Amino acid sequence: MTAQVPLDHELQSVLDLTGTFAFALSGALLAVRKQFDVVGLVILAEITAIGGGVMRDVLLGTTPPVAFRTPAYLLVPLLAAAATFVAYPQLERLAPAVILFDAAGLALFCIAGTAKALSLGLGPLPSLGVGITTGIGGGILRDLLAGDVPVVVRQDSELYAVPACLGGVVVVSTAYAHVYGTEAAAAAVAAAFSLRMLAVWRHWRAPRPRALWPR
Amino acid sequence: MTAQVPLDHELQSVLDLTGTFAFALSGALLAVRKQFDVVGLVILAEITAIGGGVMRDVLLGTTPPVAFRTPAYLLVPLLAAAATFVAYPQLERLAPAVILFDAAGLALFCIAGTAKALSLGLGPLPSLGVGITTGIGGGILRDLLAGDVPVVVRQDSELYAVPACLGGVVVVSTAYAHVYGTEAAAAAVAAAFSLRMLAVWRHWRAPRPRALWPR
Amino acid sequence: MTAQVPLDHELQSVLDLTGTFAFALSGALLAVRKQFDVVGLVILAEITAIGGGVMRDVLLGTTPPVAFRTPAYLLVPLLAAAATFVAYPQLERLAPAVILFDAAGLALFCIAGTAKALSLGLGPLPSLGVGITTGIGGGILRDLLAGDVPVVVRQDSELYAVPACLGGVVVVSTAYAHVYGTEAAAAAVAAAFSLRMLAVWRHWRAPRPRALWPR
Repeated sequence: MTAQVPLDHELQSVLDLTGTFAFALSGALLAVRKQFDVVGLVILAEITAIGGGVMRDVLLGTTPPVAFRTPAYLLVPLLAAAATFVAYPQLERLAPAVILFDAAGLALFCIAGTAKALSLGLGPLPSLGVGITTGIGGGILRDLLAGDVPVVVRQDSELYAVPACLGGVVVVSTAYAHVYGTEAAAAAVAAAFSLRMLAVWRHWRAPRPRALWPR
Repeated sequence: MTAQVPLDHELQSVLDLTGTFAFALSGALLAVRKQFDVVGLVILAEITAIGGGVMRDVLLGTTPPVAFRTPAYLLVPLLAAAATFVAYPQLERLAPAVILFDAAGLALFCIAGTAKALSLGLGPLPSLGVGITTGIGGGILRDLLAGDVPVVVRQDSELYAVPACLGGVVVVSTAYAHVYGTEAAAAAVAAAFSLRMLAVWRHWRAPRPRALWPR
Repeated sequence: MTAQVPLDHELQSVLDLTGTFAFALSGALLAVRKQFDVVGLVILAEITAIGGGVMRDVLLGTTPPVAFRTPAYLLVPLLAAAATFVAYPQLERLAPAVILFDAAGLALFCIAGTAKALSLGLGPLPSLGVGITTGIGGGILRDLLAGDVPVVVRQDSELYAVPACLGGVVVVSTAYAHVYGTEAAAAAVAAAFSLRMLAVWRHWRAPRPRALWPR
């Protein structure tokens, strides 16, 4: 059984670009913290922004990736990099807003990735895998290039992949119930975004393996 | 000249899943040693398990990768992650068994990758390259995500890529001699597996460049 | 509007192989400096040499990548690795020559990547992105595998991505002016190569974000 998922290309583009900007900013800010030069700034902004979507399209075989077919996907990170180049201290003071936008990007990317995988006939678990990869892939590449262990796997970080997973589960389950559409997509985005923001606010972390539990 | 390689899909699936479980376990165990949370545990288990096969399919252009078309490839690493989550100390005590299973996974993945590349018309050296990548790719991603220099390139590690290469050479040479089939595949797996286990047992290491030789 | 770019396959192959050898050597030399064994030597030589081109072909969807369809692309790095294995000190003394060859490789790869992307119908900015990725991708993988933050993003390194970008801009602009051909390609390579060598000679570095400027 293949879920029928209508793919609203225009809506998806707008959502993708919003997430792209937020992700690019998180890459650009990390580049300055790491004292990279302007090239590092641009590379981190670009790769954080388009990395997840490129992984999605490479995995799905829909190449060249969207990010290389629509100029805006490469332009938007350049803008984020330019803004960070001239006004890093001001942007760093906006860190809470960046977390908010990043949460939006995570939610939007994951939902778009899951829906695209379903629309191409992938099963529920693989679609979820593609969706989560779309959401967290750029951040993983960002951290690797910056010489850090990816935030998403560290136990000192608030829930990040789990909200992406929740959003994907909403997409998959509504798709299989034949009620996936604009409303369901919005609900999925809201669920992922809310869980991520709650986790940041309440410092919710993923459980650690039993062997690491304090006695 | 293109080697004709019959591809037994069912056999290949069983072998791939065995290797998948062993690789997932090695990723999950490393995640606990690195004190990652459950998300890191799942990500390392999944990426170690399917990373090499995904690289193979992306390189060969056979996307979506097998790991995203057959649910078992994503489910098996989840099981390995769950087992590690609840029973890490017991599994860590089974480390010798994990090395054994990992050697089986390495052998199976490399042979399957080499055979798949040959069956798609690639030449002997590229097929060998694809096969070795299939065998060692997941472990390289595992180590990078964990913040380590990949074990496979370090001089303090026992032979790992060399057994994979040996298995691939058996596949390529039997394929070009038109005798590749179930027996030859089994011989290739046995050769790679045996050399890996011998290397672990006897602490065989790859030679170091002359400049690093002790005087 | 799609730029019409004639693709001289034979010329491109020769140029690619020259760059391949230079890149392989830079990977092999780093492997010895990092005290890797011969497996690490071969892996770093191969991945540095073909990494950028493989990324290009995976992004463009032209798989299997050229490096897996033409045996020379995998053979040449093996030769570089073998040479480094036996004669590292002599090659290290040739470091200035390696920088020169590496600059040639960078220029050739970037121009070839940009031209290939244009020839497949990608727009100017995406083509530039693919070109730069082709030029710097292998070096990024080399540094990640060696456990280093990629040289290309660090502020203590001479211009590297910028010359690649310059070469790509020459290709894109001449292509859109309908004058791209062998002469324009040569001019693009010369521009990228010269800027890189000038940067090494004069220690030109990319500007740092304003927040990192000394007061």
